[in-house]
Amino acid sequence: MSLQSRSADEIRTLHAEMEQAYAALQQAGLTLDLTRGKPSPDQLDLASALLEEPGQDFRDSAGTDTRNYGGLVGNADLRATFGPLMGVPPEQVVAGDNASLAIMHDLVVFGLLKGVVGSPRPWGEEDEVVFLCPAPGYDRHFAICEQYGITMRAIEMHDDGPDVEAVRREVADPAVKGMWIVPTYANPTGAVVSDEVATALAQMPTAAPDFRIFWDNAYAVHHLTEERTPTADILGLCERAGHGDRPFVLASTSKITFAGSGVSFFGASADNVAWYTGLIGKRTIGPDKVNHLRHARLLPDAEAVHAHMDGHRAILAPKFAAVQEILQDRLGGHDVATWTDPAGGYFVSLDVPDGTASRVVALAKEAGIALTPAGASFPHGHDPRDRNIRIAPSFPSMADLRAAMEGLATCVLLAATEQRLDA
Amino acid sequence: MSLQSRSADEIRTLHAEMEQAYAALQQAGLTLDLTRGKPSPDQLDLASALLEEPGQDFRDSAGTDTRNYGGLVGNADLRATFGPLMGVPPEQVVAGDNASLAIMHDLVVFGLLKGVVGSPRPWGEEDEVVFLCPAPGYDRHFAICEQYGITMRAIEMHDDGPDVEAVRREVADPAVKGMWIVPTYANPTGAVVSDEVATALAQMPTAAPDFRIFWDNAYAVHHLTEERTPTADILGLCERAGHGDRPFVLASTSKITFAGSGVSFFGASADNVAWYTGLIGKRTIGPDKVNHLRHARLLPDAEAVHAHMDGHRAILAPKFAAVQEILQDRLGGHDVATWTDPAGGYFVSLDVPDGTASRVVALAKEAGIALTPAGASFPHGHDPRDRNIRIAPSFPSMADLRAAMEGLATCVLLAATEQRLDA
Repeated sequence: MSLQSRSADEIRTLHAEMEQAYAALQQAGLTLDLTRGKPSPDQLDLASALLEEPGQDFRDSAGTDTRNYGGLVGNADLRATFGPLMGVPPEQVVAGDNASLAIMHDLVVFGLLKGVVGSPRPWGEEDEVVFLCPAPGYDRHFAICEQYGITMRAIEMHDDGPDVEAVRREVADPAVKGMWIVPTYANPTGAVVSDEVATALAQMPTAAPDFRIFWDNAYAVHHLTEERTPTADILGLCERAGHGDRPFVLASTSKITFAGSGVSFFGASADNVAWYTGLIGKRTIGPDKVNHLRHARLLPDAEAVHAHMDGHRAILAPKFAAVQEILQDRLGGHDVATWTDPAGGYFVSLDVPDGTASRVVALAKEAGIALTPAGASFPHGHDPRDRNIRIAPSFPSMADLRAAMEGLATCVLLAATEQRLDA
Repeated sequence: MSLQSRSADEIRTLHAEMEQAYAALQQAGLTLDLTRGKPSPDQLDLASALLEEPGQDFRDSAGTDTRNYGGLVGNADLRATFGPLMGVPPEQVVAGDNASLAIMHDLVVFGLLKGVVGSPRPWGEEDEVVFLCPAPGYDRHFAICEQYGITMRAIEMHDDGPDVEAVRREVADPAVKGMWIVPTYANPTGAVVSDEVATALAQMPTAAPDFRIFWDNAYAVHHLTEERTPTADILGLCERAGHGDRPFVLASTSKITFAGSGVSFFGASADNVAWYTGLIGKRTIGPDKVNHLRHARLLPDAEAVHAHMDGHRAILAPKFAAVQEILQDRLGGHDVATWTDPAGGYFVSLDVPDGTASRVVALAKEAGIALTPAGASFPHGHDPRDRNIRIAPSFPSMADLRAAMEGLATCVLLAATEQRLDA
């Protein structure tokens, strides 16, 4: 029975129940954390072989002493492993340090200070630089824009990717230089960009000659079911549309091996790669090749990556199932919330009644349950409907996760009944 | 007997001898490399324990799981080891990834796009941004300026550091925002900035309120003699002069542990560190903490670093002695060249007759001896006197080094006699 259709008395009763449940929650003295998409310790254990690599055998398969300077584009074997997973020829893949976020940051910085391939001038010399931001989306993408004064325009995120009609309208504005997308199992909704949407993004005309799609494929192989959902071939689609320089493809092993000590990847057209390596060559003599060698040994080919990810799935899928079970059990009967049931990735996106997300997060915090700030998944941290909450189930133990989700459900119902009673 | 005082006949004879020696050199089919300051494999072997660290004990001394995300400022133990070596309180040291060059690059980028502490506006919004460049100096510093259109003004490098009077004159220009210095065993001359010069740099008034000294202490502990030459306390001197935000202090383990897989460090005033971490926090979630842990175990305190460097000295000092011996033996009697005899660092700076450095490098190349391009140690690669050649003795074996130095001496004499005969 939906909250909407209940009588005032029934709502008062539910509200009183939730107040009681919330008081109990506060007394329980919880310290639970659903904020960030961090792997749990048992997930990290899957890569524990890295902790003893490379041993005294420090040469890569080409015979290079990985300890010394050099090798700007990174380990060739590792690039051969990840190229196919990224949909990019290995010779157009650059393996970097521990964070693809850093590559994205640097790409934006290079755009601002130097311009990209095809830029009439550095982006920083334009009156305004605009990036399109599918929302809800990844807060750290938006933070880069915010840091450098790039205007963010929100684009609604659908189940098959960003709203293509809205994107088409926006890119008729020459100030629009970039667009963020997490194409597979998007943060936070789990959406997967369809071939149709990808094709439209590849083919659409853009007023800016140097428009770039930041194709952040952070969860390319992070399946929660046995189906290995393929990512659309953005580089191939763009090439065939005559826009080969349009996509910047990003990936990393942060949620494959060690979150803080993995390897990041950049893939793009040959011209883009030449532009990028020319610029980073003034920043570094090369990435950490010893760490590349560790990874090349753990992950000798794409199939090894898939096998490794099966281990993650075995740990993560039950946690995501528990989230679904508790949300359905506690909220399903009240018609107060909707949530995603992703087939991969790291998040569940929960929509509560408009205007109550901030209240839910505050209530949870008071009860010792840390949630990502309401609105975090929107540009400037502002959710225009104040309804979206991002749930990250990976890090807590199953017991902690269940306790946190039960508590969250209580907070959602408490905030919803409060709102109804105030109305 | 100096070349200058010889008769034309004597010079013709020497020239003919050198032509013969050079022909023999070409026939020897050498492939020798004196270009970059790379550690040799036996130097890298000193840190081979890193190749098996951290093993399954992946927690740092605070109990943090180093494999996961987080920890923007880096491993606390490692910061405590390097703080004293940098002359910076450990709580004002940030440990980063594998290259201090990358930190320097990012500091410049942040200055251009955001401004530093005390900037009236981002540097990029000024009509012109000028950096002072002690020359000969480090080519990679100059390359960063070149990439971003920063005007470089050369400052003569003396034995006790940059020409202070020239610096004082330049910083009266508000466009001068920065200055590069390698304070100890400078690249390439081996000069050490004296306390007097450092005090002058700390105290001098500057027209720009946001002038920064990039104090790149790359060779702080890289002694070639038993004397551990201390580096001037630039942060303390600047603080006492009321210019605490003036220095950015850089260091790394690139030439302590593994050249490509070490740890970099940034140290500065508390305000500068807060500014820096605020900006890099949008670029990364944190550095490679597993690699930090490896280093913290190998180098538990400053004394361990010194002891480790004694191992490098045992390998390097004989190579530097061989360079001196061959230069003295082959060139000493002819008064055609001067060279440095550094007490630390990675380079010997050789000055040949004005106008012949390019010719020497070209002759050496033809004979299979790779030298850093003539002029590389000057802004825009232009040595106004075309006389300076940077010699990097660390990487080749002793036999290769001796062969390369003998060949180089031949090329110097051949070019010098050619020039005399043409005159």
